[in-house]
Amino acid sequence: MTTLTPTLELACDLIRRPSVTPVDEGCQELMMRRLADIGFNVEPMRIEEVDNFWATHGHSKTGPVLCFAGHTDVVPTGPVQAWQHQPFDALIDEQGMLCGRGAADMKGSLASMIVAVERFIADHPQHKGGIAFLITSDEEGPAHHGTKAVVERLMDRGERMDWCIVGEPSSTSKVGDVVKNGRRGSLGCTLTVNGVQGHVAYPHLAKNPIHLAAPALAELAAEHWDDGNDFFPPTSFQISNVNSGTGATNVIPGELRTIFNFRFSTESTVEGLQQRVREILDKHELDYHLEWALSGLPFLTEPGALLDAVSDSVRSVTGQETRASTSGGTSDGRFIATMGAQVVELGPVNATIHQVNERVLASDLDLLTEIYYQTLVNLLT
Amino acid sequence: MTTLTPTLELACDLIRRPSVTPVDEGCQELMMRRLADIGFNVEPMRIEEVDNFWATHGHSKTGPVLCFAGHTDVVPTGPVQAWQHQPFDALIDEQGMLCGRGAADMKGSLASMIVAVERFIADHPQHKGGIAFLITSDEEGPAHHGTKAVVERLMDRGERMDWCIVGEPSSTSKVGDVVKNGRRGSLGCTLTVNGVQGHVAYPHLAKNPIHLAAPALAELAAEHWDDGNDFFPPTSFQISNVNSGTGATNVIPGELRTIFNFRFSTESTVEGLQQRVREILDKHELDYHLEWALSGLPFLTEPGALLDAVSDSVRSVTGQETRASTSGGTSDGRFIATMGAQVVELGPVNATIHQVNERVLASDLDLLTEIYYQTLVNLLT
Repeated sequence: MTTLTPTLELACDLIRRPSVTPVDEGCQELMMRRLADIGFNVEPMRIEEVDNFWATHGHSKTGPVLCFAGHTDVVPTGPVQAWQHQPFDALIDEQGMLCGRGAADMKGSLASMIVAVERFIADHPQHKGGIAFLITSDEEGPAHHGTKAVVERLMDRGERMDWCIVGEPSSTSKVGDVVKNGRRGSLGCTLTVNGVQGHVAYPHLAKNPIHLAAPALAELAAEHWDDGNDFFPPTSFQISNVNSGTGATNVIPGELRTIFNFRFSTESTVEGLQQRVREILDKHELDYHLEWALSGLPFLTEPGALLDAVSDSVRSVTGQETRASTSGGTSDGRFIATMGAQVVELGPVNATIHQVNERVLASDLDLLTEIYYQTLVNLLT
Repeated sequence: MTTLTPTLELACDLIRRPSVTPVDEGCQELMMRRLADIGFNVEPMRIEEVDNFWATHGHSKTGPVLCFAGHTDVVPTGPVQAWQHQPFDALIDEQGMLCGRGAADMKGSLASMIVAVERFIADHPQHKGGIAFLITSDEEGPAHHGTKAVVERLMDRGERMDWCIVGEPSSTSKVGDVVKNGRRGSLGCTLTVNGVQGHVAYPHLAKNPIHLAAPALAELAAEHWDDGNDFFPPTSFQISNVNSGTGATNVIPGELRTIFNFRFSTESTVEGLQQRVREILDKHELDYHLEWALSGLPFLTEPGALLDAVSDSVRSVTGQETRASTSGGTSDGRFIATMGAQVVELGPVNATIHQVNERVLASDLDLLTEIYYQTLVNLLT
């Protein structure tokens, strides 16, 4: 049996703690001990049922601050019998894949961050500025008492950061091939269209909400919301659910409920989208009710010091160019961006995340450690 | 306590038998005994779990035949505590209303038919042609083994009828004010529109069946199917149910299911409507599946001997004109019409049918007996 690299050893230690969201199972304790050992000021921040911590090193009040952010919680395993190996065993198979829940999302990244920072501080004890860690155990769950709440506390007391690397698995086929430099916003809504219930044989005594809503839904689905821009694809609108009817075949229902979601670019605003939805519904003279839920504003890190440092680091470690992208779902980066920081997501290949047999090429995690290390060098020396 | 008229006495006897569909509880036995007593040839026709009977009197093989049709089954009572009087007590209240389940739909009519025929045969023992009864105990239920099955047997053996009066409660505010001379057809369908499931953040990898179906449903709902004619309102189309979605707000569903129903006039055909639905769905390039369910073809009794006899009878008994109508839901008349008979529905006021506290003006049943009697006189003497 070969000896594991420090990154893989720590990754396995973390995976073996079955921290299904929002449970942490000691992952943060382990990380905090390692950081305290190299001189970090470590601050646990449990909020309600969620473990979080904030840790800083160096001149984080005055100089430029680079923060590493991530989460120790993982999604549930799904059916364990569908896994080739036990999901919390953390073993490396014959193809050199580190297998286990969280291997890619994102305990591998957490291990790389810790080992990169340990080495960086050993090599550059007098580095410029500060290094910080913002770690939560509620990214995969409701995410109310995780990064969002920590960011609010940090802003309340005037903490700041300049750059943030979130360890989300951003890569597509090779580690570092994609870095996320922003995310679209997400705006959800439940729309209720009211009609008048009745018998299908007597439609003149009823108002069929399905008939009333169909042309409006068709128009919403066909609407062109914006063109996107250099960094974002056009805003997209998707209806995820529509339900109306009593189950009986001879009854005209009294209401229709539908749920839709915008993934929106920085070319649209929440208020603008809401207004345009209302205009379309009003045009069709519907009697309706809207219940909006804003999951996250869009954020964007334009080309600059952080993206340059990351791209340069990926190139020097892997010999490959990296591609900046804003596609995909939401992440905690949206909360951190509200601190005014440049935020990117950079982590391993995301092909198996949230699936059974989650895995990541073990050697990729060592490369990721190098990439994080080189980024520290680029920004803080 | 006043003595009940023969019609009300029989109506009460029938109501006191709690013949909730498809149970007959001896109602037909009672009717058959009365008919046998006046010389009818009576033939019980139990089909599967359903009691039916067929009875004939006079020259029913050669002369013109007038058939009385109806059902002894009633709909369930609903919550008994919501009734003012026990639903199977059959009492006449201070307003002169005969109260009980089936009073209007349609044990009152059955009593009127029997008493009218008893009197007619007593008064006109040598009447022209024949009189028949076609009675089922499965009109309120699935109706598979009731009138439909009896009609099939009668046709198989060459039985015929010229005119049929179904005792359905056709009247709106006064007995005889409306006679139904036809019914629209009813054609149902379950439509499944197929898409491709996916994540709302990656719509280009999915095909949203809600977005695909909405414009087609809007077009179906807006379509003008026909103009109706002198006897029928235009064909109507109603969507009764639409369902799509996993419940999750971030998942594009894989399919949409919707149920719709045509109530169609004699200006449209089943095949024509089906073809036009397919054309609209094809125009929108949907991947779909249709599951049709024909509940009944439209039927129409145009002005002629039967409608004349009924209208004349109503006028002579009540002093009022009657109005022919094809509105409302389906009835067993649709099955009897396939025998080539002229069919009308004529019965008491339908205001309380299928409701709690079902009731009918007791004196209306005596008028109905007169109307049936006079119709017999008009057609068979």
